[in-house]
Amino acid sequence: MPYYIGDVIKDPKKLIARTPEKFEETGIRVRLDTRVEGIEADRGEVLLANGEGLPYDLLVMGTGAEATLPDIPGTTREGVFTLKNLRDGINIREYIKDNSCRRAVIVGAGFIAMEMSEALRNIGLETSIVYRGELPVRKWDPVFSGVVLEELTGNGVSFVAHNSPVAVEKGARGLCLVTSEGEIETDIIIFALGVKPNTRLAREAGLTTGKSGAISVDSSQHTSREEIFAVGDCCESYNRMSKKWVYTPLGDMANKQGRVAGRNIAGYPMVFPGIVGAQSFKMFGLEVAMTGLDEKEAEKSGYSPAGNIIWGSPVARSMNRGQKLGLKLIADRDSGRLLGAQAVGQSGAVSRINTLSACLWSGMELDEIGYMDLAYSPSFSGAWDMIHTAAQILEKKL
Amino acid sequence: MPYYIGDVIKDPKKLIARTPEKFEETGIRVRLDTRVEGIEADRGEVLLANGEGLPYDLLVMGTGAEATLPDIPGTTREGVFTLKNLRDGINIREYIKDNSCRRAVIVGAGFIAMEMSEALRNIGLETSIVYRGELPVRKWDPVFSGVVLEELTGNGVSFVAHNSPVAVEKGARGLCLVTSEGEIETDIIIFALGVKPNTRLAREAGLTTGKSGAISVDSSQHTSREEIFAVGDCCESYNRMSKKWVYTPLGDMANKQGRVAGRNIAGYPMVFPGIVGAQSFKMFGLEVAMTGLDEKEAEKSGYSPAGNIIWGSPVARSMNRGQKLGLKLIADRDSGRLLGAQAVGQSGAVSRINTLSACLWSGMELDEIGYMDLAYSPSFSGAWDMIHTAAQILEKKL
Repeated sequence: MPYYIGDVIKDPKKLIARTPEKFEETGIRVRLDTRVEGIEADRGEVLLANGEGLPYDLLVMGTGAEATLPDIPGTTREGVFTLKNLRDGINIREYIKDNSCRRAVIVGAGFIAMEMSEALRNIGLETSIVYRGELPVRKWDPVFSGVVLEELTGNGVSFVAHNSPVAVEKGARGLCLVTSEGEIETDIIIFALGVKPNTRLAREAGLTTGKSGAISVDSSQHTSREEIFAVGDCCESYNRMSKKWVYTPLGDMANKQGRVAGRNIAGYPMVFPGIVGAQSFKMFGLEVAMTGLDEKEAEKSGYSPAGNIIWGSPVARSMNRGQKLGLKLIADRDSGRLLGAQAVGQSGAVSRINTLSACLWSGMELDEIGYMDLAYSPSFSGAWDMIHTAAQILEKKL
Repeated sequence: MPYYIGDVIKDPKKLIARTPEKFEETGIRVRLDTRVEGIEADRGEVLLANGEGLPYDLLVMGTGAEATLPDIPGTTREGVFTLKNLRDGINIREYIKDNSCRRAVIVGAGFIAMEMSEALRNIGLETSIVYRGELPVRKWDPVFSGVVLEELTGNGVSFVAHNSPVAVEKGARGLCLVTSEGEIETDIIIFALGVKPNTRLAREAGLTTGKSGAISVDSSQHTSREEIFAVGDCCESYNRMSKKWVYTPLGDMANKQGRVAGRNIAGYPMVFPGIVGAQSFKMFGLEVAMTGLDEKEAEKSGYSPAGNIIWGSPVARSMNRGQKLGLKLIADRDSGRLLGAQAVGQSGAVSRINTLSACLWSGMELDEIGYMDLAYSPSFSGAWDMIHTAAQILEKKL
């Protein structure tokens, strides 16, 4: 009989849907609030905190990731948060309400920081982002990061660049974030510094981890032991563009990997075909999206990349009411193949990036992309979509 | 010296940009308002209406298409229009204003009819669509045509099904459209019955036309004579899905074909890689889009098609504010290959269809599409995008 072990989010609706009794009926035994202390892989047994041993023939690890906290004093103070799951979100909201917070500091400038800044501004908090670098969302081209910065400041978020957190102290009223460059008084601090995979159990069980630090898997989601699978934020994924195993913990991939492992276990074999690195987020009035590799990653992967940004209109110019869309393509000089794309604009960015993800998926070259048939209508693009124009211009530069 | 012959749209801005003098400077001689009466292909000469003969080494035909008028009495009456170019649009607007029109009838139910109905409702006209069939936009699945019909009626457009125009007569006040089933009093009538290619010159010059009636071309846009090219709404296009030369007169293809012919003439050879049939329109609050083949076309093209519609949310369900998106996929039972897709919804339809057009372009199969990497973010899709779900469900049905 298969087991599910873990702590389920304390969301009443979900708990009702996932009551142990329901699972028992379907032949799945659920043990909530049950901590696993170790895995005796050679014996095929999971060791629980209460001393019990659960034998297994097949084991799936979905141990996920945890939010990174910097190694500085004071991060355990009340009012200091990370954001990884729904419970964290609820805790943050309740803390703000219970303590009538007026000021918030977010440390970090990735997409979680961007999304949080919008959420905090929407409920009226004075919001600052503290970041060690110059510009937010450094995965994107600096030009696009600049657009993101404008969107932040235009919506009343202050962006404190070139500052690293040094300590969290008690403030005059609330908290004080001490940084490399000064002090910021605030009521709540959210560290949004990314996540690291939860691999202690896997490592102690002798499973191989990759260069990224996450659990190594093959395309069937097997770990280094045939009978143990790993899926989601605890394991690596194969990037079809870089041809490398990477750590890209995103919810859509976790879903796919879970399905792949489940099918392999249930006797309907399939492989996870990998990722191209498509991702997006929305912040205030801006869509921000990317797929594939940037120039640096492309070079590290043995390509000879060239990139170019164009600015244009997400709809036909005659229909445009002041919207601008920036689209960057990166391609390989040797093969003409598309390697990556980035887009930023009030609308139409994610749509272009998804179309270009399908192009990346199938290895299309710029000359094809420049003349590919898309669903033209003035409400949605010019007769030449920005995808066409960007591909044609970059092709000339290769 | 190359010539440009034809009547340019009477738009002052465009005229300034295209004054003959400007073209002369660049070595192109423009002759506006100049009618071509014939082409002496063996002699290599274009015959103008004024008796003049213009010799050529290479000739490009961009004779376009004209709107279809039914062969019924009264279509030359004042207040009867077709809509093909900007001039037609201006004429319609002026007629409505000058005659204080309150009521409009559109005959036909393709996408021009849909777009016109929105334009007319927006300026407050009582608008009826008269159509011989049961449902509008018959290229789409009847379920989606039903959604379009709801959008029409929900926005105050009356849809008069199963009626064909028989005559246009003088009405009690204005015009009267006599149909197979009755009479409709109106102030303006717009026939939106599609277009046919302008091929008289081509046919008289001995050029081959295809089954569709449009000028036959090869992938370099050569007609049956090496020295004569044809581009745009007067010629056929190669459909990569049906593997047939078809007549699909759309603005984006015309642009691409013009560029291809130009490059071949200028000594930078390229081929037009064909179309997959991507198209879209917006009407009121609805996006309507399709790409590839429907089941009937697929069967005629030798495939063994299966299709399936799913309904879902264009964004993550937690972010949805009542938006619904319908997505239909059509695939080949034998190969599992995607053959076509259709989508209708308040948002997200064109985005999906463009992504699926890229999949069609590269011949992707459903199992790949079901696990392809797209730029997930709750603002733009569920963790499984509707593309994934639709592909997985249809794959099970093959």
